[in-house]
Order: sequence, then C-alpha cells, then structure tokens
Amino acid sequence: MLMEAVARPDALTIVETLKAELAGAGAIETLKIMHSLPTDEQGVAFRLLAKDHALALFEQLDTDQQHRLLRSFTAEAATEVVEALAPDARVRLLDELPATVATRLIDALSPAEREATNTLMGYAPETAGRIMTPEFVSLRGTLTAAEALDRVRELADQKETIYTLYVTSPARVLEGVLSLRELLLADPDAVLADVMSRPVVSVVTDADQEKVAHLLQELDLLAVPVVDKERRLVGIVTVDDAIDILEQEATEDLYDNAGLADVTSGEADRSSVLISGSLWSIWKVRLPFLLITLVAGMLAGLVIEGFEEALESIAAVAVFIPLIMDMGGNVGTQSSTLFARGVALGHIHMSQFRRHFLKELRVGLSLGLLVGTISGVVAGVWQGLPLLGVAVGLALVAAMTLAALLGFLVPFVLIRLNIDQAAGSAPIITSIKDIAGLMIYFSFVSLFLAHLT
Amino acid sequence: MLMEAVARPDALTIVETLKAELAGAGAIETLKIMHSLPTDEQGVAFRLLAKDHALALFEQLDTDQQHRLLRSFTAEAATEVVEALAPDARVRLLDELPATVATRLIDALSPAEREATNTLMGYAPETAGRIMTPEFVSLRGTLTAAEALDRVRELADQKETIYTLYVTSPARVLEGVLSLRELLLADPDAVLADVMSRPVVSVVTDADQEKVAHLLQELDLLAVPVVDKERRLVGIVTVDDAIDILEQEATEDLYDNAGLADVTSGEADRSSVLISGSLWSIWKVRLPFLLITLVAGMLAGLVIEGFEEALESIAAVAVFIPLIMDMGGNVGTQSSTLFARGVALGHIHMSQFRRHFLKELRVGLSLGLLVGTISGVVAGVWQGLPLLGVAVGLALVAAMTLAALLGFLVPFVLIRLNIDQAAGSAPIITSIKDIAGLMIYFSFVSLFLAHLT
Repeated sequence: MLMEAVARPDALTIVETLKAELAGAGAIETLKIMHSLPTDEQGVAFRLLAKDHALALFEQLDTDQQHRLLRSFTAEAATEVVEALAPDARVRLLDELPATVATRLIDALSPAEREATNTLMGYAPETAGRIMTPEFVSLRGTLTAAEALDRVRELADQKETIYTLYVTSPARVLEGVLSLRELLLADPDAVLADVMSRPVVSVVTDADQEKVAHLLQELDLLAVPVVDKERRLVGIVTVDDAIDILEQEATEDLYDNAGLADVTSGEADRSSVLISGSLWSIWKVRLPFLLITLVAGMLAGLVIEGFEEALESIAAVAVFIPLIMDMGGNVGTQSSTLFARGVALGHIHMSQFRRHFLKELRVGLSLGLLVGTISGVVAGVWQGLPLLGVAVGLALVAAMTLAALLGFLVPFVLIRLNIDQAAGSAPIITSIKDIAGLMIYFSFVSLFLAHLT
Repeated sequence: MLMEAVARPDALTIVETLKAELAGAGAIETLKIMHSLPTDEQGVAFRLLAKDHALALFEQLDTDQQHRLLRSFTAEAATEVVEALAPDARVRLLDELPATVATRLIDALSPAEREATNTLMGYAPETAGRIMTPEFVSLRGTLTAAEALDRVRELADQKETIYTLYVTSPARVLEGVLSLRELLLADPDAVLADVMSRPVVSVVTDADQEKVAHLLQELDLLAVPVVDKERRLVGIVTVDDAIDILEQEATEDLYDNAGLADVTSGEADRSSVLISGSLWSIWKVRLPFLLITLVAGMLAGLVIEGFEEALESIAAVAVFIPLIMDMGGNVGTQSSTLFARGVALGHIHMSQFRRHFLKELRVGLSLGLLVGTISGVVAGVWQGLPLLGVAVGLALVAAMTLAALLGFLVPFVLIRLNIDQAAGSAPIITSIKDIAGLMIYFSFVSLFLAHLT
C-alpha cells in the first residue's frame, strides 16, 4: 500500500503530515496514530520517530504488531530493534515468530543478550521462567543502606525495575527483599540484612504464569522474584506483565465460552486476526466448534426421530422443543461460567467437591421447579392438554437440574484431568444437555401418550 | 460458630493452633488461612495478628470480606481499621456498605481523613475521581534533584507511591512527571523542570475507570495522574487498582455473556455470593435471564405452532429444529463475543462500521454456505427427502448469516445507545436468532411442502 502511495504525487504530503503529527505527539497519541495506520505505513511512521522514542514505542505494541512491523524492516534494523528489547519482551516476541526467523534473530544478537534469551527460551511456555526478566537488582545483605543506594544508582539504567530490591547470598540464594522506599527511609548506616523483610514471597521457575499474575494482583506487588529449585534468584516477573497475562487469560475464557478455538498463540494475535484476518484464518477459529455443534444437532435430531410416533400423534409436542433446549442450555452455561470463574478467583476449592455439588443440585432443582411450574401451566393451558403441560414441567425440572450439575461437573472433571477446563466445557455441555433434555422431554411425552391422544 | 466453639473444651486449642499458624505465616499464607476460615473465625484470626500486619492484610481482602469482617468488630475497632485504610481503599469499602453504616463510619473519622473521603465520594462511581488516591507526591519544578530527593524521603511514609513524582505549579497545575529512577540518576544540582518529562499522560476526574485501567496497562505505567477541568492535579490511580478493575471488567463480561444479571455491586461480592450465598441471592442473579429465555422459548414455540400443518404432514421436519437453533445460536455468540472483546481491546473502531459489517457478512455467509451444504446433504440423504435437505441447507445459510450480523449489530447498537453492550446482548440475540431461525426454516419447508408430501 505504501509503495503505491510513494508513486502517487501526494505520497510526500502523507509522510510530511505523519511526521508533523508524530513530532508533537505524546506516548498515547503516538500509540493511537500507530494503531490507526495500515501496517506498511506503521513501518514508515516508526522510522520517522526519534530512535529512543521508537524503541520505547516498539515495546508497547502487541506482539503481533511487533511481528508485522519487524517484517517491514531490513534484517539489520530488525536485529537492532530486537537487541534493544528487554529480555522478557524479546522472548515474548520470539515466541510469536516462525522458528526460522526467531533462530536467525537470536543468532544475530550480542553474546550476552543471546545467552539471556536462550536461558529464558529454555523454560516451558506460560511458566514464570519463560516470562521473567533476568534484569533485577540483587544486593548483598552485608551492604549498608548508603552503599546499597549507590549500587542501585549504578545499576538503575540496566534493570527492569529498581523499586523492589533483592538480597541474595554469595551463592545467589534469595534471602530477603526490600523496597526502594524502605531503602530510602532506612538509617544510611544500617546493614541491609537488618532492614530487609523475610520470608520473601517467591515463585519457582515452572510456576504457571496465571498463578504468578494472580499472586502479584492479590498481594499488590510491583514484582515477584522467581527462584530455581535451590532457591537461587534467577529472575523477576513485573506487574506490567502480570496485567497482560490476566487480560489474556480473561480473553481466552471469553473466547472459549463463545466456542472460538485456540489455534493461534497470543491473545492480541487472536483478537485482531479474528477481526481483520483472512477468511481462512477466521474459519480455522470459528469452524471447529460449529462442526461439533453440527454433530450434536444431528444427534439431537436422532432423538426426535426416535420419538416420531409421538410427534405424529400430537404435533403440539414439537412446540416446546425450543423451550426445553434453551432452558437447559442457559442453566448449564450459567453453572459452568460460575464454576470456572469461581476457581480462577479462588472462591471455589476443588477439595470441597461435595459441598459445591450439593449446592448446585439445590440451585438447579429450585430453578427447575419454578420455571417448570410456570412453563407447565402455560403449556397445558395453551395447548389445552394438561398432561402435555405436566410433561413439559417435569422435563424442565429434570433437564435444568441435570444441566446445572453438568455445568458444574464437566469443568470439574476436566480440571481434575488437567485439561484446560474452559476450552472443552462449552461443546460438551451443549451436546449433552441438548440430547439429554430432549430425551427426558420425549420420554415423559411417551409415558403420557396413551392418555394424550 | 465461634461462640459454640468457645463453649467446647477444644476451643482454646483451636485458637492456639490458629495463633501458632499465623505467627509463622508470611503474607500469602496469612491470606490463605484467612480465606479458608468461616467469617466468625476470620474475626478471631484478625485480632490475633500484630496490628500492622492486620491492617496490611485488611487492605488485601476483597471488599465483601472486609465488609463481613467489619461487622464482627466493635464500633471502635471498625473505626480504627477504616481510619487506617488508604483513602481509595476506604472509598471502595464504603461504597459496598449500607449507607447508614458508611455514614456512621465517615462521621467517626478524623477531620483530615473525613475530608479526603468525602471528596472522593463526591465523584461519580466508576470514574477516575472515585477510585483515585489523593496521596501522591507533588514537587515544585524549581527544586533541585537533591532537594527533591530529601522531600521524597520526608513524604515517603504517607504517600501511596513515591516511584512516580509529579511536578506542579503553585496553583497545583500539573506541569511534568518524573520517576524516582530518573530522580536518582539526575545530577543532584539539576532543576526538576529540566529533568521532568512532558507532555504528561493524564486523565480527567470523570474518565471511565476501565479506560483509565486500559491506559495504565497499555503504557505500562505504575500510576496515572488525575486532573480536574483546570488541569490541577487532584489524585493518582495506581497500577494495583488498575489490575483489579480489569479483572472485575473481565468477570462482568463473562457473567453477562452467561446470562447472570448484575444485581450486586462488586465483582468479588458477586462471585462469592453466587457460589456461597443464599438460594434467594442466587435466584436474583440467575432467574432474570431464565425468565427472558422462557418467553423467548414460548415465542419460538409459537412459530412452530404456526407451521403445525407442515409438521403434521412430515414429522421429520422436527428432526432438524435442534440443528437450526444451535447453529444460529453459536454463530451469534461467536460474533457478539468477538465484537465486544474487539472493542474492549481496541481492535475494532466504531467509526469503521461499514468495513466490519461487510466482513461479518462475508464470514457468516461463508460459514453458513459450508455448514448448510454439509447439513443439507446429510439431512436429505438421512430422511430420504432431498427437498427437505435443501430446506435445511438454505435455512442454515440464512440463519447463520443473520446470526453473525445480529451478533455484530446488537452490541453495536447498544454501544451507540450508551447501554452496557454485554449486559443486554445475550438475551436479545438468543431470542431473535431462535425465532428468526425457525421462521426461516419453516418458511422454506412450507415453500417445498407441496413437493415434499
């Protein structure tokens, strides 16, 4: 798109306008301008920025935008940008790139940056080790507060944060933590070992990234230290990364609930691909769940076919198929959403299975009794067939109770099996509740059939 | 529960065990122990903690836990705890309390804290003004870096954060910002006005809290300044509050999508009420959507009743009702989720209505054509009625295209009308797609009826 633009007489004007816009823009405006441009023009805008400004901006872009920008750069410019990124931001970007591109970029890094990068890449994806930065400030406990402050000043330029400081032994074992605030307030002659807090909240390298993010959130921390099996401090996870992880997790949950398959890696990637991507990339995400639904819908149809005799005797039976299906579906979705979110927020403990099961049973049953009674009366009066009303009512009580329990049980079983619960729950619950609900309904109808006709 | 326990011989043991457990526990363990206790015992555990430790812990609890704990305190103890909270945490708690309790607590505060609280309570809920803290560090631009550092040391104890420092004019107008890191690295004799950055990213007091949180996330800030209409600095919103807001927003979106009504105020409150609350409190949240579904299901039934003639001629027509309903529903949910999330993440711009509409039209149509073709062939062969297959196929193409467009249009219209889009979308889309899908299906069946029988 840009190449065409350059060939047109107003291309220079576009560049000049962009340059003028960017010159006066603060951080948000620049981001907004970048977001509003097509990818090719983003590359131009990027090159128009002052170098420091450009690198700071690059770190703030989504990984997929970074990826697209990178492709518009020369190999040399790309290496320079990747070299300048913080190690954790670099790993996040490399994770999104095709393996060959990633390898080439890693090879082109300076030895020190390459080593840091390879270390992080060695940890499993979505663990504390993979997302941490090795750029933390660690100090000896024997330093005085004044010496420590001088040391912080020396290191301030190279470290991701200087607001949380870690005290380690000569063997790099984590011994204590203190905030820069505490250091500033401490008696300059006090020894760090006496000023620092302990025990230190820390996570191990293979801790799940979501758990780490929740920990930072729950304890209102700016950073959490990551230690290896020997309690040696190897990195820190900072709050800005925790926010991104929590948002990504929330988006995944929403998408999983809505039946959008997880075929691309990052959250940002997925959302923008789903909106602006090619039809094929959208199909890959939306079609799997629709095909499962297709099979489930056909199976539900098979149930109806099995009771065609009842339908042929009384066509009015078909009138309540939508009600039975919708009601079970909604109760099931409510239960599975509450359960999944309750686990994520720590309000549900997997150990209290029996208590939660009984609660959900009572909720499903009570909702079923109420809605079933109303529907049964309406159905009976409407169709002038009291027994059909009884069948509708009883079917709703049974289907809604079952749906509530399934909504709770399916995610529970998936969590126990260590399968990401949200991803599998929606299609399974939809299929079971449709088929079971219709089976229950038609069974009651068949039971009453002799009296109905 | 505790009173009974005290009456039993092992009650003292329980208290002693708790005391021993808490004594050795760090911040996370204490939080975990608190979470695991019934409310009455939480009160006891709380009183067993050292005072500083107890107050720090109180700030970290959810507002509903704070609320319940507070009720177990004497009036005096409650006032003391509320007085010790940071102004923004205090306002968050007061927002959750019954008005009479809140007023009594505010009246009991010291004059300075009461004034700070009343100022914040004067801003509309869910705005920057309501969630900000007035405890920020502001400095004059004429100070040298060394003088500024001394001033920061003096203020460090009373301020929420000292890591972001604000430079203001004598009239309190926000002039610039600098981080404590920049201050430490600056030449001690340099004047702040020369060291600070500008323009400063800031928000106004009535900015929506979610927008503020997204801004902090997007720019990786630790705090964002809040200014009034005259650009006077009146408070800051810190990153720990931003995380909580983003998580609350994500939970709301999930719940709204799952048809859980918004009858309680806070997210934490809602999740724990929905899991551990009384049946009545759960009914209030879950029943509204189920009653809407009841009406929608009955209306869908009305459509089927209108085509009873067709059903009576060929009962096999009923076999594909579940398929039509499920498919439209799933496509609609996919579209509305993508649209709502895309807007939240900034990937969809309301101004590009036409582009997104056409895209969604193409996506819905292409998915409909594929699924419709497969389903039509299967249906025709299965029932031995090719024309029924054609009706099923055509109905799916139409219903899925319509559902995709509705999934996009309904949230779009609700956003334009300034109604919280997620809350209203799910029931509206469910109702329309059910009724429209069945109408389309039966219309095709009726059209072919003469040839089918």
